[in-house]
Amino acid sequence: MTVRTLAELAALVGGEVSGDGSLAIIGVAPLEEAGPGQVSFFANKRYRAAFEATKAGAVLVGKDLEVAAGRTVVRSDNPYLAFAKLATHFYPAARAVPGISPQAAIDPTASIDPGAQVGPFVTVGARTTVGPRTILGPGVRLGDDVRVGADCILYSNVVVREGCLVGDRVILQPGVVIGGDGFGFATDLIGEGNGPRHFKIPQAGIAAIEDDVEIGANSCVDRAALGVTRVGRGTKIDNLVQIGHGAELGALCIVAAGAGIAGSTRLGLGVVVWGQAGVAGHLEVGDRANISAQSGVMHDLDPGARVAGTPAVHERTWARGQAALERFNDMRRQLIELKRKVAMLEGQPEKEKE
Amino acid sequence: MTVRTLAELAALVGGEVSGDGSLAIIGVAPLEEAGPGQVSFFANKRYRAAFEATKAGAVLVGKDLEVAAGRTVVRSDNPYLAFAKLATHFYPAARAVPGISPQAAIDPTASIDPGAQVGPFVTVGARTTVGPRTILGPGVRLGDDVRVGADCILYSNVVVREGCLVGDRVILQPGVVIGGDGFGFATDLIGEGNGPRHFKIPQAGIAAIEDDVEIGANSCVDRAALGVTRVGRGTKIDNLVQIGHGAELGALCIVAAGAGIAGSTRLGLGVVVWGQAGVAGHLEVGDRANISAQSGVMHDLDPGARVAGTPAVHERTWARGQAALERFNDMRRQLIELKRKVAMLEGQPEKEKE
Amino acid sequence: MTVRTLAELAALVGGEVSGDGSLAIIGVAPLEEAGPGQVSFFANKRYRAAFEATKAGAVLVGKDLEVAAGRTVVRSDNPYLAFAKLATHFYPAARAVPGISPQAAIDPTASIDPGAQVGPFVTVGARTTVGPRTILGPGVRLGDDVRVGADCILYSNVVVREGCLVGDRVILQPGVVIGGDGFGFATDLIGEGNGPRHFKIPQAGIAAIEDDVEIGANSCVDRAALGVTRVGRGTKIDNLVQIGHGAELGALCIVAAGAGIAGSTRLGLGVVVWGQAGVAGHLEVGDRANISAQSGVMHDLDPGARVAGTPAVHERTWARGQAALERFNDMRRQLIELKRKVAMLEGQPEKEKE
Repeated sequence: MTVRTLAELAALVGGEVSGDGSLAIIGVAPLEEAGPGQVSFFANKRYRAAFEATKAGAVLVGKDLEVAAGRTVVRSDNPYLAFAKLATHFYPAARAVPGISPQAAIDPTASIDPGAQVGPFVTVGARTTVGPRTILGPGVRLGDDVRVGADCILYSNVVVREGCLVGDRVILQPGVVIGGDGFGFATDLIGEGNGPRHFKIPQAGIAAIEDDVEIGANSCVDRAALGVTRVGRGTKIDNLVQIGHGAELGALCIVAAGAGIAGSTRLGLGVVVWGQAGVAGHLEVGDRANISAQSGVMHDLDPGARVAGTPAVHERTWARGQAALERFNDMRRQLIELKRKVAMLEGQPEKEKE
Repeated sequence: MTVRTLAELAALVGGEVSGDGSLAIIGVAPLEEAGPGQVSFFANKRYRAAFEATKAGAVLVGKDLEVAAGRTVVRSDNPYLAFAKLATHFYPAARAVPGISPQAAIDPTASIDPGAQVGPFVTVGARTTVGPRTILGPGVRLGDDVRVGADCILYSNVVVREGCLVGDRVILQPGVVIGGDGFGFATDLIGEGNGPRHFKIPQAGIAAIEDDVEIGANSCVDRAALGVTRVGRGTKIDNLVQIGHGAELGALCIVAAGAGIAGSTRLGLGVVVWGQAGVAGHLEVGDRANISAQSGVMHDLDPGARVAGTPAVHERTWARGQAALERFNDMRRQLIELKRKVAMLEGQPEKEKE
Repeated sequence: MTVRTLAELAALVGGEVSGDGSLAIIGVAPLEEAGPGQVSFFANKRYRAAFEATKAGAVLVGKDLEVAAGRTVVRSDNPYLAFAKLATHFYPAARAVPGISPQAAIDPTASIDPGAQVGPFVTVGARTTVGPRTILGPGVRLGDDVRVGADCILYSNVVVREGCLVGDRVILQPGVVIGGDGFGFATDLIGEGNGPRHFKIPQAGIAAIEDDVEIGANSCVDRAALGVTRVGRGTKIDNLVQIGHGAELGALCIVAAGAGIAGSTRLGLGVVVWGQAGVAGHLEVGDRANISAQSGVMHDLDPGARVAGTPAVHERTWARGQAALERFNDMRRQLIELKRKVAMLEGQPEKEKE
């Protein structure tokens, strides 16, 4: 068990203690569950009541928060980030235990750094390289000519097909598939004796996952037909996400669970795609665009655009449309009443019964 | 081949034979395909014609159904349930063949019940326990400190990461991932020399799958950041479903394929989530709420609520909105006509064109 | 490196060279990236500018395209198909290297063609057969009584459960699951001492994947409760797609990423289902129907129907509905103005303030 004084922890996160810096801290916890030996955080006003009631020994808060007397806090500009850093201190990332399982199947031409950890039943293809301190969990499959950098974690049953690239400090959750064939077919109405067919376009490109990317369980990044499908530096992708062939995601994007980015689409820097949203193929999405959950983007988006709905429109337009639907029936009643009045004014009672 | 008399089968399901109880039955089949040696069922009036025409030796029906003379039936309160029980009689669940494949990789500190079946290329981590009669299919990955109960089936390539809990009689279809990291990052606009970054929040909690749960192929249940992601007793989850970190599903929920429950959301007892629906994070969904296919829930739901649409609203409100859209153009024509008439009445012919 | 003259390549695709047929060609590339030794294609007018600017040695074009003097082209009826064929020439499909890895676990009663390639850590069940020239990548799991035909590629970690059938020339991308249990439960409100439960309907049928099908990474085709879930000849399915139990897809369908076809639904010939769309259960979808991205089909569709929205309606109806929403607020203003005018005409100034 790690024990630290509050002052030590505050120093770690660049925060300032208000209260007893000598307090012994053994971990972090949510406001509701924290005890006197734990640090919690308060970053969202919605949880003010929980903050007031918490039994946490100390709470990470913003610089200017007003706090009741006797409450020990650590002040910093970004208390959520401070919490993330403290949590990392108490729950550090897994570290490679160097060595290759005797039950792995490694091609003799592969090059695995002696500091890497390779689990049982892993397969590593010809000419593939694995960097220092990288962990390959049980059942990971690296094809031929794959490059995996340093300090990565590829969890159980991750598949990286031939030729694909994985940078440094990349985390791939279980079941991720990098470099599956893109979905490309030319319709051949004549065929060669067996009638029409969908003729497969070879998917001869690769997928490249840049440094500091994380990809969630069972998500898929397809290889390009020609060229590269790219997931930019520091981008984070949740579970069950589809990235189509030839797509390019800029740095620092966020893609939530169940979303899909179709082929050849380019996302700029810091684009946020919420859960179950879809972006059609061959589009350009500008930097920092924000795509609401379940929306369907069918047109290019300007930098900073905030869209919702299918087809996705500006968030405000979408909200107006939703409000309109709710007011519609009221409006319909007004229209019927007006028709009646106008007919009266015209001297001919309305007959048509809508 | 199992052969039973109809009377024996009726007893199994607590039903009452009307007709020849000595009939020899060798299996179950749908109404359209059943022959004289097979039992079928009729539970949905929509299939009345198929019921009339069936060649089944006997049909499981409700208590009060009127039936043509000469038709052999087994009456019970819940004929679909009766069918399920009979089908289970003819197609019993797989049974463990006790033993551990010599090609599995079991940590010496793991404890596997001698009645369990462990397939080839399975990996079992340190201190992990596996209960009696549980089947671990080929390529299953259990991390360290995992507990799997009795009478479970974990099909091929299922992954249960470190520390996670699986109850008794749990079925995990192929490719299920339990305990992948939740999706949590603190945005750090300053970083440490390489510009902004998404700083990973350690996901130090676990996922717990309670007794009698079934989870479909390639579905994912993320581990909590702190604490537990919980899937309640008897809940059934279909394929390609996402359960976010810290979510809690009550007992006896149904979650259909492609749906997603975001982090920290709580579903009550018996909630039904239809295909491709999404529930946003940090919500409370009351007992027995019903969430339509493809809908997007963005607010708490009362017990028994029935919602549809994105954002999800009461089913009736949604249906009205849909109807409104269909009637809109008609309404628009009426409005134009009214404007013309009013202008006439005012003595100033309408100029503005729509 | 393969080198061919342009004339040789034109002959391969049944095209006609306009320009220098003796040109040496070493590969294919997109218009923007191609150099003098490469062939590109121009099939979509949208890319006219790229066509004019390309440095490609030759371009595959349609029969009647007008082309600037000096531009070398190969004319054919279907330049995209011609491109697919040329690309296949330069990037041929993987070929089996016959043999069974000593690290595979093959049941002694299985029958694997000597021309097949079986990777490390593959498991093959009892009585299962694998045809000539088929490749089973590392970690593939074939259950008992499975049949896989000739010339297939099953990539890493594909699972085909017991009894299921895979035809010839089938491609299954990594992580595909064939024959997971369908999602079927009978609600038992009484139970047997532990309260209500969802009673599992045994899933005793199979899934059958016909010849020339391709299925994308981590997609799932469930086995039927009784009978067969069928994916018809030449159908192509993208990543993360769900095919429910008892569904039947006709020949030559296209199902894009994230889509779901619920149980017992039948798609005709050549149906196209775009990304993240859903089709409810027990429906009939006619030949060549076209289902837009993210739409939700809740009713049978006629052959050739083109639908969008949730619930899905005819594309034109849907587009009108979308347009209506946009015009709604304008209409609402008109209605308020009309009410004011009518009140004036009636001699009673409008009081009600909407």
